[in-house]
Amino acid sequence: MIERPNGGKRITQAWDYLVIATGAIPIRPNVPGIGAEGIYEVTTLEDAIALRKVLEERKAKRAAIIGGSYIGIEMAEALLRWDLEIVLIDMLPQVMGTLDPDMAKLLADAIAKEGVSLYLGEKLTGFDTTGKQLNAVVTDKREIPADIAILGIGIRPNTALAKSAGIPLGIKDAIVVDSRCKTQVDGVWAAGDCAQSHHLVSGKPTWIALGTVANKQGRVAGLNVAGNDVNFPGVVGTAISRFVETEFARTGLSEHELEGLGIDFVSAKITGHTLARYFPGTQPITVKLLAEKKTGRLLGGQIVGGLGSAKRIDILATALQAGLAVEDLVNLDLGYSPPFSPTWDPIHIAARQLLKVV
Amino acid sequence: MIERPNGGKRITQAWDYLVIATGAIPIRPNVPGIGAEGIYEVTTLEDAIALRKVLEERKAKRAAIIGGSYIGIEMAEALLRWDLEIVLIDMLPQVMGTLDPDMAKLLADAIAKEGVSLYLGEKLTGFDTTGKQLNAVVTDKREIPADIAILGIGIRPNTALAKSAGIPLGIKDAIVVDSRCKTQVDGVWAAGDCAQSHHLVSGKPTWIALGTVANKQGRVAGLNVAGNDVNFPGVVGTAISRFVETEFARTGLSEHELEGLGIDFVSAKITGHTLARYFPGTQPITVKLLAEKKTGRLLGGQIVGGLGSAKRIDILATALQAGLAVEDLVNLDLGYSPPFSPTWDPIHIAARQLLKVV
Repeated sequence: MIERPNGGKRITQAWDYLVIATGAIPIRPNVPGIGAEGIYEVTTLEDAIALRKVLEERKAKRAAIIGGSYIGIEMAEALLRWDLEIVLIDMLPQVMGTLDPDMAKLLADAIAKEGVSLYLGEKLTGFDTTGKQLNAVVTDKREIPADIAILGIGIRPNTALAKSAGIPLGIKDAIVVDSRCKTQVDGVWAAGDCAQSHHLVSGKPTWIALGTVANKQGRVAGLNVAGNDVNFPGVVGTAISRFVETEFARTGLSEHELEGLGIDFVSAKITGHTLARYFPGTQPITVKLLAEKKTGRLLGGQIVGGLGSAKRIDILATALQAGLAVEDLVNLDLGYSPPFSPTWDPIHIAARQLLKVV
Repeated sequence: MIERPNGGKRITQAWDYLVIATGAIPIRPNVPGIGAEGIYEVTTLEDAIALRKVLEERKAKRAAIIGGSYIGIEMAEALLRWDLEIVLIDMLPQVMGTLDPDMAKLLADAIAKEGVSLYLGEKLTGFDTTGKQLNAVVTDKREIPADIAILGIGIRPNTALAKSAGIPLGIKDAIVVDSRCKTQVDGVWAAGDCAQSHHLVSGKPTWIALGTVANKQGRVAGLNVAGNDVNFPGVVGTAISRFVETEFARTGLSEHELEGLGIDFVSAKITGHTLARYFPGTQPITVKLLAEKKTGRLLGGQIVGGLGSAKRIDILATALQAGLAVEDLVNLDLGYSPPFSPTWDPIHIAARQLLKVV
């Protein structure tokens, strides 16, 4: 829903430079019952306010979340504060499709441990309703009784306008831009969730709709339109989130992505401690690294662990951006003192493990 | 004091490869009164046990810490738990000589705020005693009454043995080793606090006595002695610690070091938030970056801030190791979500600021 401050009137505005920053829109599945009361998106503040009102009025006893990615998992955490039965449904056989299955399993276990029922590998087919009221979420495998349902099944670039204007679209219908955020049409620029990016690890176009990427593209588009010459080199696919006290993050390419690209890779996974083993507050952390088989070039990394785990992904993101190899990681001069890290950081330990198989 | 399990007997042991890993020893100032009771080092467990006993018996009311670097600051934090007047004395006009003065000031303010009295720019000249008992610490500016004194004025490589054996010493009398941790004498290797390292930013030898460097050198020396061919490329000078809830870290070269090397540099400093501004637990963080004036190559970085600040030094350490420039930092694909970072990480914000003056 796009708000129109001028009441929806058509206006005509001449321009020298046009920046398209129309963002993304949530995917709304076209299934029976989708119009029922009790089905919420969490895209706008209004959505959240409406949902919160229902929770505060204690009208709902059973909540179903459809989508086991960032939004679904964050909503599962938020709903834990209310006295509800919570189920999380995803069509993939794992939560967080951007993690490797083994790492996603660690996260799924943490989610289940908090009492959230997971229905993975189940596709939403519709909603069962009585009149306008939601009764159950229907998957290809079962009916799951629910008083409210929350949709978090993803977003897509909001590029209908760009498309109708003849601006070339690329991957997943995101607008094709060069490293200066210029589209293939003179004078027209694009930035943010509506535009694609260059993936620095795969060397191919990608579409990653995250605020941090959008901000960087916005800066570059803005500077260039204002007469500068600035490049946005691209992304490495970093993302981070948490569920209660389990943090998770990923960067680079996953096994699935590497297989799709036909890249020969090796991986290593270790479980260690976030802090010195004896230090109060130390938490388990699992680090998985992926590298190119012959060259040892780092290709990706994933982290799942307790509080203080996931921001280490930045080390790997920086290493990917710089094109470092596993052997470089072993010798990174990372900050060590007992309240911050073991002497060998878990990143080091994973790199040493990976070095054995490169 | 080196413990001799065999009771100090001389033994003769033939060797094919010799690894010298004799570590470092604390500097003990040769000043009047140094032998008094109540003066502690904190090098061995025995030191700490003896000190703790005095504290537990409530025999001390006034504690003086000599040395405002890692050990001194960590001891100041430890002593806060006891009902004591605490003073911290350093001959430098700042705490933490490896930080730039402006960053060290932030840390000093945090230390003073907890009630520790700082006497900076004052040189220890001796200890005033009655019989064997300590009365006061004497500096070149005043007498400071103290029941106990803790020495944390630094360490030096423990290389007397190596020197007497004719093994060449280098910077600060640390043993000269190549990138394989071999000394200049055939068959003799050295690793850890007794050995020097290569500084990847200055390109010169350096001596950094930290457990994390020692571990990496030990790995490389051990692998090479065992017939492998492994290199330790060097260090970038990363260090991290905290005082109560103020974290601090540094990497690369400081202003003082850059001036000594005659490198033309620019710097930028920003204060931001560790997490999204609105997120519970967000803390102030100050990031300072230093870069080469013409090339924009990152030369160093320092962080002082609340909990969750300092481990970001690893981003800068990785960037230094990879030889990244400030512009690369601006576009790093760092992990963002509100519980972990603002959309623009403080590292990004500092890099953007620095980009304006490179």
